[in-house]
Amino acid sequence: MSTFTIHTLGCGSAKPTLRHQPSSTVINYRENLFMIDCGEGTQHAFQKQRLKFNRLRHIFLTHLHGDHVLGLPGLISSLGLMGMTGKITIHTFPEGKRIFTRIFDFFAPSLPFEIEFNLIHKEEAVILDTPSLSVRTLPLEHRVPAVGFVFEEKEKLRHIRRDMIDFHKVPVAQIRDIKEGADFINPEGKIIPNAHLTSPADPSLSYAHISDTAYMPDIAKKIGPVDLLFHETTYLDINKADAAERGHSTARQAATVARDAGAKALLTGHYSSRYKDDSEFLKEAREVFPNVILNNEGLVTPLD
Amino acid sequence: MSTFTIHTLGCGSAKPTLRHQPSSTVINYRENLFMIDCGEGTQHAFQKQRLKFNRLRHIFLTHLHGDHVLGLPGLISSLGLMGMTGKITIHTFPEGKRIFTRIFDFFAPSLPFEIEFNLIHKEEAVILDTPSLSVRTLPLEHRVPAVGFVFEEKEKLRHIRRDMIDFHKVPVAQIRDIKEGADFINPEGKIIPNAHLTSPADPSLSYAHISDTAYMPDIAKKIGPVDLLFHETTYLDINKADAAERGHSTARQAATVARDAGAKALLTGHYSSRYKDDSEFLKEAREVFPNVILNNEGLVTPLD
Repeated sequence: MSTFTIHTLGCGSAKPTLRHQPSSTVINYRENLFMIDCGEGTQHAFQKQRLKFNRLRHIFLTHLHGDHVLGLPGLISSLGLMGMTGKITIHTFPEGKRIFTRIFDFFAPSLPFEIEFNLIHKEEAVILDTPSLSVRTLPLEHRVPAVGFVFEEKEKLRHIRRDMIDFHKVPVAQIRDIKEGADFINPEGKIIPNAHLTSPADPSLSYAHISDTAYMPDIAKKIGPVDLLFHETTYLDINKADAAERGHSTARQAATVARDAGAKALLTGHYSSRYKDDSEFLKEAREVFPNVILNNEGLVTPLD
Repeated sequence: MSTFTIHTLGCGSAKPTLRHQPSSTVINYRENLFMIDCGEGTQHAFQKQRLKFNRLRHIFLTHLHGDHVLGLPGLISSLGLMGMTGKITIHTFPEGKRIFTRIFDFFAPSLPFEIEFNLIHKEEAVILDTPSLSVRTLPLEHRVPAVGFVFEEKEKLRHIRRDMIDFHKVPVAQIRDIKEGADFINPEGKIIPNAHLTSPADPSLSYAHISDTAYMPDIAKKIGPVDLLFHETTYLDINKADAAERGHSTARQAATVARDAGAKALLTGHYSSRYKDDSEFLKEAREVFPNVILNNEGLVTPLD
C-alpha cells in the first residue's frame, strides 16, 4: 500500500471530447487528499475513484482557465450538502478568490465548513508547510498567470532496529532522538553509533505538477529529481509552433524537462482534442526519456 | 423518425451519486435543440448522445440552484472554442443574468457568438413564440423562484390530397389557403369543400417540464393534456413531509398531476440520492397513473 499516490481524474484539455475529462488530479498522501485543479465533472470522477470527500482539505489551482476550475462550484456545493465540516483551503491567484467568492456566495451561500483562500502568485514560494510535506510553486509561461506545484515529503525518521535497542537497553525517552540520527551513550559512557541502532529512513518522495505551460528549458533544475513529474503534453512535436503560440508544450518537450530534471518518471496529460490516438504522446516522449507513463482518467500512480 | 423527442442528459438531484447526473434535458424539435437546465457535466452528456452543438439555440433555466445550472459556464466556453456563431438565448431570472454575465466575462471573455438573456419571472407568460412552437412558463413552488416550461406545437397545416387537387385543377397559388382550411371555388363558381381536398393535419404535440416544485394540485389544469409531462419525482410518498419541506414532490404526487392534467404519459426524474432503486418511483407512480416512463440518463423519448 503506497503512502503517496497520484489519481488522475481528468487529463484532457479545454475542447471537450468523449475520450477525456478536463483537468483534475488528486494526490493521496497518507489518506490526506490534495486536489490540483478541478475541471467540470471532477466531483463525479472523484466519486468514481472511491476517494473520500471528507479527506479533502486542500485544493490547488494552477491557473484560472475554465477547463481547470469550473468543477469547483459544484464540488464546493456538494461538500456542503454532504455536511462537510472544518476547513477547505483553496490555493489560487487573487482574481480566483474574487470570482469564486462571488460564485460560492450565490450558489452555496450557507456552507457548514469554512473556505480559506491562500493567495498565490506567479513566483517561487513555499505555499504549504506541514510537519511531513511541503508544497512550493514554480512560475509557468501560459496565456494567463500560471504556476506549477512541487510536493516534497520531508526527511523521514530512521527505522529503529528493535534487536539492537533491546541489546543496548536504550531507554524509551531516547528513541525519538535516535530515530532522528543521534548516537546512544550507554550508562558505562560507551558511544553506540546510530548506524548500529537504526536502518536508513525511507526515501522522501516528491511529485511535481507542471500545467499549463510553454516549454521552459530552465524549469528542469527548479523541479529537481522528483519521483514523478506530471508535465503537460498538450501537443505532439509536429505542432510545436501551435504549442508555443498557445502557451503549451509537446510530448518531446515534456520528456526533455523530465530528463533534464533527473525525474524518475514522467506522467503525460492535458491532451489536445485534435489527436485521436494517445499512444503517440507516449511514443514521442520515450524517444527522449525512457520512463514515461501514459496518463488516462482513472489512472492511479504510486510514487513508491 | 420523430420530429419531437426528449433527451434526458441528467435526472439526478443535487447530492452527487454515481447513478445519476445533475439536471439537464434537451428537446429536439425538428433538429432545433432546446435545452432545459444545464447541470455540471451537461456538455459531456450532450456529446455522448451525439447531439449537435450548432443546433442549440435556446437554453431555459427552471431556477438557479447549482445542480440545474453549473454546467452552463463550461458549455458556453466550449461553444466558443468550437467556433459557434450566431446567437444563443438564455431564458432565466434577472439574478441569473447577473451572475452568469460575471462568470462568462471571466471565463469566456471573447466569444464568437452573441449571448442574449431573455428575462423570465415567476409568472404565467409566453416567453418564446415561433411560427411552429411556443413556450410558456408556469410558476412553481420551490425554495427559490422557479418555473416550469410548456412547449406547444402550433396547429399544423392540413395535408393536401394530390389526386383531388389535380382533379379539381386547383391553382398552385391557392394551395397554402387550402392547407390552412379554405374551400376552393372553381372557375364555374362551384364550391369544393376543404374536406374533399385535404386530410386532417398531424396532431400538434406538447411537452411540459415541471421541476423543481412542491406538489401543486392546481397546476394540472394549467399544464393541460400534454403528450408528455416531465414532473420531478424527487421523493417517494413515504418521505412526503421531506418533499413538502424542501419544495419537492413525490412520485405519487407527480402521477396525480399527470392524471389530473390528462397527460398522455409521465416522465419521472430529479431522483433524491437517498434511494438506491429507481424502480420504486415507477411502481409508486403507476398506482395512480398508468403510463409512466422511468427516466434515466441517455433516455430518448419521442412524443409521436
